[in-house]
Amino acid sequence: SIATHPKKRIEIMIEAPALLRVTGALDQAEATGYTVLPALAGRGNGGTWQRDDAFGDSGRIVSVVCISDAQRVPAILEALKPLVERHIGIVSVSDVEVIRPEHF
Amino acid sequence: SIATHPKKRIEIMIEAPALLRVTGALDQAEATGYTVLPALAGRGNGGTWQRDDAFGDSGRIVSVVCISDAQRVPAILEALKPLVERHIGIVSVSDVEVIRPEHF
Amino acid sequence: SIATHPKKRIEIMIEAPALLRVTGALDQAEATGYTVLPALAGRGNGGTWQRDDAFGDSGRIVSVVCISDAQRVPAILEALKPLVERHIGIVSVSDVEVIRPEHF
Repeated sequence: SIATHPKKRIEIMIEAPALLRVTGALDQAEATGYTVLPALAGRGNGGTWQRDDAFGDSGRIVSVVCISDAQRVPAILEALKPLVERHIGIVSVSDVEVIRPEHF
Repeated sequence: SIATHPKKRIEIMIEAPALLRVTGALDQAEATGYTVLPALAGRGNGGTWQRDDAFGDSGRIVSVVCISDAQRVPAILEALKPLVERHIGIVSVSDVEVIRPEHF
Repeated sequence: SIATHPKKRIEIMIEAPALLRVTGALDQAEATGYTVLPALAGRGNGGTWQRDDAFGDSGRIVSVVCISDAQRVPAILEALKPLVERHIGIVSVSDVEVIRPEHF
Protein backbone atom coordinates (compact mmCIF):
# COMPACT_ATOMS: atom_id res chain seq x y z
CA SER A 1 0.00 0.00 0.00
CA ILE A 2 1.08 3.55 -0.77
CA ALA A 3 2.95 5.44 1.98
CA THR A 4 1.34 8.54 3.45
CA HIS A 5 2.75 11.18 5.77
CA PRO A 6 0.95 13.10 8.53
CA LYS A 7 0.55 16.84 7.96
CA LYS A 8 -1.80 19.60 9.07
CA ARG A 9 -4.43 21.28 6.91
CA ILE A 10 -4.98 24.91 7.85
CA GLU A 11 -8.13 26.53 6.45
CA ILE A 12 -8.57 30.28 6.76
CA MET A 13 -11.92 31.87 5.90
CA ILE A 14 -11.36 35.61 5.85
CA GLU A 15 -12.50 38.87 4.26
CA ALA A 16 -10.81 39.40 0.90
CA PRO A 17 -9.19 42.73 1.87
CA ALA A 18 -7.11 40.83 4.44
CA LEU A 19 -5.89 38.24 1.92
CA LEU A 20 -2.50 39.81 1.24
CA ARG A 21 -1.85 40.01 4.96
CA VAL A 22 -2.84 36.35 5.32
CA THR A 23 -0.50 35.20 2.57
CA GLY A 24 2.21 37.48 4.00
CA ALA A 25 1.75 35.81 7.39
CA LEU A 26 1.99 32.37 5.75
CA ASP A 27 5.19 33.43 3.95
CA GLN A 28 6.64 34.86 7.17
CA ALA A 29 5.92 31.59 8.99
CA GLU A 30 7.55 29.70 6.10
CA ALA A 31 4.46 27.82 5.00
CA THR A 32 5.50 26.11 1.78
CA GLY A 33 2.34 26.69 -0.21
CA TYR A 34 -1.33 27.57 -0.15
CA THR A 35 -4.37 27.78 -2.39
CA VAL A 36 -6.99 30.55 -2.38
CA LEU A 37 -10.60 29.65 -3.14
CA PRO A 38 -13.39 32.20 -3.72
CA ALA A 39 -16.60 32.17 -1.66
CA LEU A 40 -20.04 33.12 -2.97
CA ALA A 41 -21.81 34.03 0.22
CA GLY A 42 -21.74 33.46 3.93
CA ARG A 43 -22.94 34.34 7.35
CA GLY A 44 -20.94 35.22 10.42
CA ASN A 45 -21.51 37.10 13.62
CA GLY A 46 -22.25 40.30 11.77
CA GLY A 47 -25.06 39.04 9.58
CA THR A 48 -25.33 37.68 6.05
CA TRP A 49 -23.12 38.83 3.19
CA GLN A 50 -23.19 38.04 -0.50
CA ARG A 51 -20.53 38.67 -3.08
CA ASP A 52 -22.97 40.30 -5.47
CA ASP A 53 -23.73 43.03 -2.95
CA ALA A 54 -20.12 44.00 -2.48
CA PHE A 55 -18.24 46.96 -3.89
CA GLY A 56 -14.91 45.54 -5.01
CA ASP A 57 -13.36 43.32 -2.39
CA SER A 58 -15.10 44.65 0.69
CA GLY A 59 -17.45 42.08 2.12
CA ARG A 60 -16.10 39.23 0.00
CA ILE A 61 -14.76 36.15 1.75
CA VAL A 62 -11.99 33.87 0.52
CA SER A 63 -10.87 30.48 1.78
CA VAL A 64 -7.12 29.89 2.01
CA VAL A 65 -6.01 26.26 2.36
CA CYS A 66 -2.46 25.51 3.48
CA ILE A 67 -0.93 22.05 4.03
CA SER A 68 1.93 22.24 6.51
CA ASP A 69 4.27 20.27 8.70
CA ALA A 70 2.89 20.05 12.25
CA GLN A 71 5.98 21.77 13.62
CA ARG A 72 5.29 24.94 11.63
CA VAL A 73 1.66 25.23 12.74
CA PRO A 74 2.27 27.19 15.98
CA ALA A 75 4.23 29.87 14.08
CA ILE A 76 1.55 30.02 11.39
CA LEU A 77 -1.25 30.39 13.97
CA GLU A 78 0.72 33.09 15.84
CA ALA A 79 1.12 35.01 12.58
CA LEU A 80 -2.57 34.61 11.67
CA LYS A 81 -4.07 35.39 15.08
CA PRO A 82 -3.91 39.20 14.91
CA LEU A 83 -5.46 39.12 11.43
CA VAL A 84 -8.52 37.13 12.45
CA GLU A 85 -8.86 39.34 15.53
CA ARG A 86 -8.96 42.47 13.36
CA HIS A 87 -11.04 41.01 10.49
CA ILE A 88 -14.00 38.67 10.19
CA GLY A 89 -12.27 35.34 9.93
CA ILE A 90 -11.97 31.74 11.08
CA VAL A 91 -8.81 29.64 11.23
CA SER A 92 -9.22 25.88 11.61
CA VAL A 93 -6.61 23.14 11.68
CA SER A 94 -7.11 19.44 10.97
CA ASP A 95 -5.07 16.28 10.55
CA VAL A 96 -4.43 15.00 7.04
CA GLU A 97 -2.21 12.43 5.36
CA VAL A 98 -0.36 13.37 2.19
CA ILE A 99 1.40 11.27 -0.44
CA ARG A 100 4.30 13.66 -1.26
CA PRO A 101 6.16 14.55 1.94
CA GLU A 102 8.90 16.57 0.24
CA HIS A 103 6.63 19.40 -0.82
CA PHE A 104 5.71 20.86 2.59
CA SER B 1 2.21 27.86 22.10
CA ILE B 2 -1.10 29.29 20.94
CA ALA B 3 -4.25 27.79 22.45
CA THR B 4 -6.65 25.98 20.15
CA HIS B 5 -10.17 24.71 20.78
CA PRO B 6 -11.83 21.58 19.37
CA LYS B 7 -14.74 22.16 16.99
CA LYS B 8 -16.44 20.34 14.14
CA ARG B 9 -16.21 21.22 10.47
CA ILE B 10 -19.37 20.38 8.55
CA GLU B 11 -19.07 20.35 4.76
CA ILE B 12 -22.22 20.15 2.66
CA MET B 13 -21.95 19.56 -1.09
CA ILE B 14 -25.41 20.10 -2.52
CA GLU B 15 -27.32 21.25 -5.60
CA ALA B 16 -27.56 25.02 -5.70
CA PRO B 17 -31.39 25.09 -5.75
CA ALA B 18 -31.33 23.59 -2.23
CA LEU B 19 -28.90 26.21 -0.86
CA LEU B 20 -31.50 28.40 0.82
CA ARG B 21 -32.99 25.37 2.53
CA VAL B 22 -29.48 24.36 3.69
CA THR B 23 -28.73 27.77 5.14
CA GLY B 24 -32.21 27.85 6.67
CA ALA B 25 -31.51 24.50 8.34
CA LEU B 26 -28.18 25.83 9.66
CA ASP B 27 -29.95 28.91 11.04
CA GLN B 28 -32.69 26.80 12.61
CA ALA B 29 -30.05 24.60 14.32
CA GLU B 30 -28.32 27.78 15.54
CA ALA B 31 -25.09 27.30 13.60
CA THR B 32 -23.16 30.53 14.14
CA GLY B 33 -21.78 30.94 10.64
CA TYR B 34 -21.02 29.34 7.32
CA THR B 35 -19.33 30.03 4.01
CA VAL B 36 -20.63 29.04 0.56
CA LEU B 37 -18.12 28.08 -2.13
CA PRO B 38 -19.00 27.55 -5.81
CA ALA B 39 -18.19 24.30 -7.62
CA LEU B 40 -17.20 24.01 -11.28
CA ALA B 41 -18.10 20.43 -12.01
CA GLY B 42 -18.67 17.10 -10.36
CA ARG B 43 -19.86 13.56 -10.55
CA GLY B 44 -22.29 11.74 -8.30
CA ASN B 45 -24.51 8.73 -8.58
CA GLY B 46 -26.48 10.24 -11.41
CA GLY B 47 -23.61 10.91 -13.78
CA THR B 48 -21.37 13.86 -14.55
CA TRP B 49 -22.51 17.47 -14.36
CA GLN B 50 -20.82 20.68 -15.35
CA ARG B 51 -21.83 24.20 -14.47
CA ASP B 52 -21.53 25.41 -18.04
CA ASP B 53 -24.25 23.01 -19.16
CA ALA B 54 -26.76 24.24 -16.62
CA PHE B 55 -29.75 26.50 -17.06
CA GLY B 56 -29.57 28.89 -14.14
CA ASP B 57 -28.99 27.13 -10.86
CA SER B 58 -30.27 23.70 -11.79
CA GLY B 59 -27.45 21.20 -11.85
CA ARG B 60 -24.94 23.48 -10.15
CA ILE B 61 -23.33 22.31 -6.93
CA VAL B 62 -22.19 24.46 -4.03
CA SER B 63 -20.07 23.61 -1.02
CA VAL B 64 -21.20 25.00 2.33
CA VAL B 65 -18.62 24.93 5.14
CA CYS B 66 -19.76 25.44 8.73
CA ILE B 67 -17.56 25.38 11.84
CA SER B 68 -19.60 24.43 14.90
CA ASP B 69 -19.46 23.36 18.50
CA ALA B 70 -19.67 19.57 18.76
CA GLN B 71 -22.83 19.81 20.85
CA ARG B 72 -24.74 21.51 18.03
CA VAL B 73 -23.77 18.94 15.40
CA PRO B 74 -26.60 16.44 16.04
CA ALA B 75 -29.23 19.18 15.60
CA ILE B 76 -27.50 20.43 12.45
CA LEU B 77 -27.36 16.93 10.95
CA GLU B 78 -31.02 16.28 11.82
CA ALA B 79 -31.97 19.51 10.06
CA LEU B 80 -29.83 18.69 6.99
CA LYS B 81 -30.81 15.03 6.62
CA PRO B 82 -34.13 15.51 4.79
CA LEU B 83 -32.45 17.94 2.39
CA VAL B 84 -29.73 15.54 1.30
CA GLU B 85 -32.33 12.79 1.01
CA ARG B 86 -34.40 14.91 -1.39
CA HIS B 87 -31.47 16.46 -3.32
CA ILE B 88 -28.13 15.27 -4.63
CA GLY B 89 -25.88 16.03 -1.69
CA ILE B 90 -23.23 14.89 0.74
CA VAL B 91 -22.78 15.99 4.35
CA SER B 92 -19.45 15.21 6.02
CA VAL B 93 -18.20 16.11 9.49
CA SER B 94 -14.59 16.27 10.67
CA ASP B 95 -12.60 17.34 13.72
CA VAL B 96 -10.81 20.67 13.63
CA GLU B 97 -9.06 22.96 16.08
CA VAL B 98 -9.78 26.71 15.97
CA ILE B 99 -7.99 29.68 17.48
CA ARG B 100 -11.05 31.86 18.29
CA PRO B 101 -13.47 29.87 20.44
CA GLU B 102 -15.89 32.72 21.06
CA HIS B 103 -17.12 32.87 17.47
CA PHE B 104 -18.93 29.53 17.19
CA SER C 1 -28.85 10.98 17.83
CA ILE C 2 -28.37 10.66 14.08
CA ALA C 3 -26.15 7.82 12.84
CA THR C 4 -22.95 8.70 11.01
CA HIS C 5 -20.54 6.52 9.07
CA PRO C 6 -16.74 6.83 8.83
CA LYS C 7 -15.36 7.73 5.40
CA LYS C 8 -12.30 9.39 3.95
CA ARG C 9 -12.19 12.84 2.39
CA ILE C 10 -9.60 13.11 -0.37
CA GLU C 11 -8.67 16.65 -1.45
CA ILE C 12 -6.59 17.12 -4.58
CA MET C 13 -5.17 20.56 -5.39
CA ILE C 14 -3.80 20.35 -8.92
CA GLU C 15 -3.15 22.35 -12.09
CA ALA C 16 -6.28 22.59 -14.19
CA PRO C 17 -4.72 20.94 -17.28
CA ALA C 18 -4.42 17.72 -15.24
CA LEU C 19 -8.06 17.74 -14.14
CA LEU C 20 -9.34 15.26 -16.72
CA ARG C 21 -6.56 12.86 -15.77
CA VAL C 22 -7.47 13.29 -12.09
CA THR C 23 -11.14 12.55 -12.67
CA GLY C 24 -10.15 9.66 -14.94
CA ALA C 25 -8.01 8.26 -12.12
CA LEU C 26 -10.91 8.62 -9.68
CA ASP C 27 -13.21 6.83 -12.13
CA GLN C 28 -10.66 4.07 -12.70
CA ALA C 29 -10.33 3.55 -8.92
CA GLU C 30 -14.15 3.46 -8.70
CA ALA C 31 -14.55 6.55 -6.57
CA THR C 32 -18.30 7.13 -6.44
CA GLY C 33 -18.27 10.90 -6.79
CA TYR C 34 -16.32 14.11 -6.56
CA THR C 35 -16.72 17.86 -6.72
CA VAL C 36 -14.39 20.30 -8.48
CA LEU C 37 -13.87 23.76 -6.95
CA PRO C 38 -12.02 26.63 -8.68
CA ALA C 39 -9.06 28.39 -7.05
CA LEU C 40 -8.25 32.09 -7.43
CA ALA C 41 -4.56 32.09 -6.64
CA GLY C 42 -1.90 30.13 -4.85
CA ARG C 43 1.71 29.54 -4.10
CA GLY C 44 3.69 26.35 -4.33
CA ASN C 45 7.29 25.37 -4.76
CA GLY C 46 7.52 27.13 -8.08
CA GLY C 47 6.40 30.58 -6.96
CA THR C 48 3.13 32.46 -6.90
CA TRP C 49 0.42 32.06 -9.53
CA GLN C 50 -2.82 33.91 -10.11
CA ARG C 51 -5.69 32.90 -12.29
CA ASP C 52 -5.88 36.29 -13.97
CA ASP C 53 -2.32 35.92 -15.27
CA ALA C 54 -3.00 32.63 -16.97
CA PHE C 55 -3.54 31.86 -20.64
CA GLY C 56 -6.47 29.50 -20.69
CA ASP C 57 -6.09 26.73 -18.18
CA SER C 58 -2.34 26.75 -17.80
CA GLY C 59 -1.34 27.88 -14.36
CA ARG C 60 -4.84 27.58 -12.92
CA ILE C 61 -5.39 25.36 -9.91
CA VAL C 62 -8.51 23.42 -9.05
CA SER C 63 -9.49 21.60 -5.89
CA VAL C 64 -11.15 18.20 -6.29
CA VAL C 65 -12.94 16.82 -3.23
CA CYS C 66 -13.87 13.14 -3.13
CA ILE C 67 -15.59 11.32 -0.26
CA SER C 68 -14.74 7.62 -0.34
CA ASP C 69 -14.85 4.37 1.57
CA ALA C 70 -11.54 3.80 3.38
CA GLN C 71 -11.00 0.55 1.49
CA ARG C 72 -10.90 2.35 -1.85
CA VAL C 73 -8.37 4.95 -0.74
CA PRO C 74 -5.19 2.96 -1.53
CA ALA C 75 -6.33 2.38 -5.12
CA ILE C 76 -7.28 6.05 -5.48
CA LEU C 77 -3.90 7.21 -4.14
CA GLU C 78 -2.06 4.79 -6.43
CA ALA C 79 -3.96 6.16 -9.40
CA LEU C 80 -3.32 9.79 -8.37
CA LYS C 81 0.35 9.44 -7.47
CA PRO C 82 1.84 9.64 -10.98
CA LEU C 83 -0.31 12.70 -11.71
CA VAL C 84 0.92 14.72 -8.74
CA GLU C 85 4.47 13.63 -9.53
CA ARG C 86 4.16 15.02 -13.07
CA HIS C 87 2.12 18.14 -12.21
CA ILE C 88 2.10 20.70 -9.42
CA GLY C 89 -0.29 19.11 -6.97
CA ILE C 90 -1.10 18.03 -3.44
CA VAL C 91 -3.23 15.07 -2.37
CA SER C 92 -4.41 15.00 1.24
CA VAL C 93 -6.65 12.50 3.00
CA SER C 94 -8.63 13.04 6.20
CA ASP C 95 -11.22 11.27 8.32
CA VAL C 96 -14.83 12.35 8.06
CA GLU C 97 -18.22 11.09 9.17
CA VAL C 98 -21.11 11.12 6.71
CA ILE C 99 -24.86 10.76 7.17
CA ARG C 100 -25.66 8.83 3.96
CA PRO C 101 -23.51 5.71 3.79
CA GLU C 102 -25.10 4.29 0.66
CA HIS C 103 -23.75 6.95 -1.66
CA PHE C 104 -20.02 6.20 -1.53
